[in-house]
Amino acid sequence: MSGAEMKTDVFTISEAGESAAERGNTNKKRCIFEQYVQPCLVELFGTSLFVFVGCASVIGNMGGGVVIQPAVAHGLALGVLIMVFGPISGGHFNPVVSLSVYLCGGMGLPLLLPYVLAQMCGGMIGAGLTKAMFPSDVYAVSLGGAFNIVNKNLGQTTLAEAMMTLFLTTVVCMGAVNNQTRSPGVPFCIGLTVTANIFAGGMLSGACMNPARAFGPAAVANHWSHHWVYWVGPACGALLTVGFVRLLLGDKKTRIVLK
Amino acid sequence: MSGAEMKTDVFTISEAGESAAERGNTNKKRCIFEQYVQPCLVELFGTSLFVFVGCASVIGNMGGGVVIQPAVAHGLALGVLIMVFGPISGGHFNPVVSLSVYLCGGMGLPLLLPYVLAQMCGGMIGAGLTKAMFPSDVYAVSLGGAFNIVNKNLGQTTLAEAMMTLFLTTVVCMGAVNNQTRSPGVPFCIGLTVTANIFAGGMLSGACMNPARAFGPAAVANHWSHHWVYWVGPACGALLTVGFVRLLLGDKKTRIVLK
Amino acid sequence: MSGAEMKTDVFTISEAGESAAERGNTNKKRCIFEQYVQPCLVELFGTSLFVFVGCASVIGNMGGGVVIQPAVAHGLALGVLIMVFGPISGGHFNPVVSLSVYLCGGMGLPLLLPYVLAQMCGGMIGAGLTKAMFPSDVYAVSLGGAFNIVNKNLGQTTLAEAMMTLFLTTVVCMGAVNNQTRSPGVPFCIGLTVTANIFAGGMLSGACMNPARAFGPAAVANHWSHHWVYWVGPACGALLTVGFVRLLLGDKKTRIVLK
Amino acid sequence: MSGAEMKTDVFTISEAGESAAERGNTNKKRCIFEQYVQPCLVELFGTSLFVFVGCASVIGNMGGGVVIQPAVAHGLALGVLIMVFGPISGGHFNPVVSLSVYLCGGMGLPLLLPYVLAQMCGGMIGAGLTKAMFPSDVYAVSLGGAFNIVNKNLGQTTLAEAMMTLFLTTVVCMGAVNNQTRSPGVPFCIGLTVTANIFAGGMLSGACMNPARAFGPAAVANHWSHHWVYWVGPACGALLTVGFVRLLLGDKKTRIVLK
Repeated sequence: MSGAEMKTDVFTISEAGESAAERGNTNKKRCIFEQYVQPCLVELFGTSLFVFVGCASVIGNMGGGVVIQPAVAHGLALGVLIMVFGPISGGHFNPVVSLSVYLCGGMGLPLLLPYVLAQMCGGMIGAGLTKAMFPSDVYAVSLGGAFNIVNKNLGQTTLAEAMMTLFLTTVVCMGAVNNQTRSPGVPFCIGLTVTANIFAGGMLSGACMNPARAFGPAAVANHWSHHWVYWVGPACGALLTVGFVRLLLGDKKTRIVLK
Repeated sequence: MSGAEMKTDVFTISEAGESAAERGNTNKKRCIFEQYVQPCLVELFGTSLFVFVGCASVIGNMGGGVVIQPAVAHGLALGVLIMVFGPISGGHFNPVVSLSVYLCGGMGLPLLLPYVLAQMCGGMIGAGLTKAMFPSDVYAVSLGGAFNIVNKNLGQTTLAEAMMTLFLTTVVCMGAVNNQTRSPGVPFCIGLTVTANIFAGGMLSGACMNPARAFGPAAVANHWSHHWVYWVGPACGALLTVGFVRLLLGDKKTRIVLK
Repeated sequence: MSGAEMKTDVFTISEAGESAAERGNTNKKRCIFEQYVQPCLVELFGTSLFVFVGCASVIGNMGGGVVIQPAVAHGLALGVLIMVFGPISGGHFNPVVSLSVYLCGGMGLPLLLPYVLAQMCGGMIGAGLTKAMFPSDVYAVSLGGAFNIVNKNLGQTTLAEAMMTLFLTTVVCMGAVNNQTRSPGVPFCIGLTVTANIFAGGMLSGACMNPARAFGPAAVANHWSHHWVYWVGPACGALLTVGFVRLLLGDKKTRIVLK
Repeated sequence: MSGAEMKTDVFTISEAGESAAERGNTNKKRCIFEQYVQPCLVELFGTSLFVFVGCASVIGNMGGGVVIQPAVAHGLALGVLIMVFGPISGGHFNPVVSLSVYLCGGMGLPLLLPYVLAQMCGGMIGAGLTKAMFPSDVYAVSLGGAFNIVNKNLGQTTLAEAMMTLFLTTVVCMGAVNNQTRSPGVPFCIGLTVTANIFAGGMLSGACMNPARAFGPAAVANHWSHHWVYWVGPACGALLTVGFVRLLLGDKKTRIVLK
């Protein structure tokens, strides 16, 4: 394997989940631990760090409604974590990302449920760490970084979450799964999509796009107001993406019609 | 094809439009759908997402005149979309970018008009999604992200649009079309040029540089005040760029004089 | 050596320290100066520039508590310095980064203590330059960029420093030492992790993560209030990282159990 | 030449000036126009765009002393311009950068003076364009983006300019000239160093680091107060860098002692 091929490999994120489950057959050197346990550990570890940084950037944001601090912190933390953990687990850290990657053919089924559980546990660990770090009055004022819907029109809020997640999962599926458009820069593409989306919709719905990010602080701060929006909206967005990629945007291998 | 060559290919954006139209002759595997339909779909899809994020970042920007939020949101969204869709359509999402790429030899004529139409439809879809998401009073206050000229000297405003578009299309034509200076980092170069330009001229003319971005929210919010500025300014900038590249800055293949 | 391999080499940061000490045996061309003296000089030079930019961005930050300016300045300066000096010294500029890289097998023991001393001297030089540049009243108001703990609960502050350093050193050890996940983009991954952490914890503990960055301005401004927090917290975070990487997250070569 | 080598070539900025003057001997295909005229045209064109974006971001910055907008605009515009024009001229756009690159062996003497003259003309064109675009009252209030020294201690101001230029030219000479540390990411390293420096010293001296950027708006707005500071400070910084690189930090080929 040449140096150039190795580099491409380092950056590829979508195959990691798949490879953990499937490459094992051809590569006898990967043991059970590296195939199944390490990817889940990495999803747990990475989601903990992501949710910790995300919640702390919201709690520590004294600017009163300004979204710059949370937008940049979430995006950079996610981009960095996908870069360093992508080769092991694919670097999802988000249940609906795992769902869309699975449905677009980027990972095997056996790891889907373990990934989602690891991400939810990671969300709680990250939110718990945040709670342990902040003075309790500061923590309480900002609900521990949990999402609080400002716009009481829940249809608009759910639509916003769906559209922003559509953008995010499109970048994941096109940039990391679809062969024609896969690119080594995809980790920061995904992170910066989150930043752009928070700048776009942070005032609308909080721009969560990630049920694990919503679930962790909601559980730790016990704040469940309209929590379902942050599962239904992102899930709809991810399914829409899968439809677009599988029917229209994917390459010959990914597309299931119009070949 | 080695791994390194493949990577270069993934990033190249200028050839995509061309390849869709012309590579077909040598590569029998690309069907009509992939040559002509998919690139237009991708321009429609990408422009929708770009205009949605752009308009939402303007409407959700409560900071009263501060340009950070719109500047970063437009730039990052554009950079990410060019990265993931560039290999299919070239990732223009802007009628005057398509014009300058065509005139510099980076795409074939048959796709020019379909691209422009797809971009204008995408602009309307993105602006419509934004309207559906925001409370109507918030939407109305900010004109739905449509451009509103503050400086009543229209000559200065048109000049500003022309100069900023000159910068943008120079980056596109030199970084993605001209062989001597093509670079794999061009998607984010283009996006970050938009960010720098909004920081420079956001207060002057809104720093549109893109008729499709101007047309979509203008149509949806029915706000057409001095709309022609956002077609004439960018078009002049793009034509100036083509003149500079074809006469002075291009390499032997691109330049038409002084060989 | 092919062009692609050379490029990978240019970006690799973790091996530089190691190579300075160990490659010498196989590569007779590297003299004593290049093996031992130049890496220490580079750590001294780079830490001076990093601490100068960092302290100046805090002193010049008139925004009253807003962390954007220090967060971006520290992150970009660090990323750039790792990029250009990484091939010589590894680009640590931080005693606990050197500690974690050494314990994860990324550099030899002989350079560990010289590196730490060079980093502490660099911190003082950078802080001294800052003092020479600012009017003395402006300098005094902001304590010369030295850290001042706002939250009087020192346990929480130390925990925050430990967790943020855990994130930082995880990125260093996984992105620059661990073979499976090493990536050419690691210099900016490390820098942007610092930016994200300052956005997350700047309000909590100052988000130092670097004893040399704490020591320099503390010595120059003679402000030692709770200075130990900025040694104990980061050191604990670095040791936690080493535990995770050596026991769970590393590849076969890095991991010492579960092979 | 393999794909990977070509890519490295595309990014290399320091050799461009050299190649224009010296590669001509070995490569008969480069005509006089491409060797001598085009690099100067590119320096003129690029400096115009850089100074235009820079001055406009200062004039359009209504935030009263906040440096985010100018810092990001200058850095991104510079990074993008180096990326797309680097392969032709080296992408200096700054007389003291040309000086330090020449003294470190990265370009030939015949182009040094033409480059500096082209950069100064470019600065005036960019500043003139800015003046044509802004309402005259807005233009006058902010001195057209010319530098205005706030701190009346000129020694401190000159020292600040020297130190920030030392950082900038170190990144240029190590990242683009010195073989051991050259990297394809250097265009944005240089741009982001400018951003970090403006965050650090924008309040101190304006963080110019570039006589052409100072000269252009000074000439157009006829504001010459302490103008010499922006020539003496950056020149001293560039000469200090050359000393460090030639004596201590360079590789065997660049270093002139301790071989």
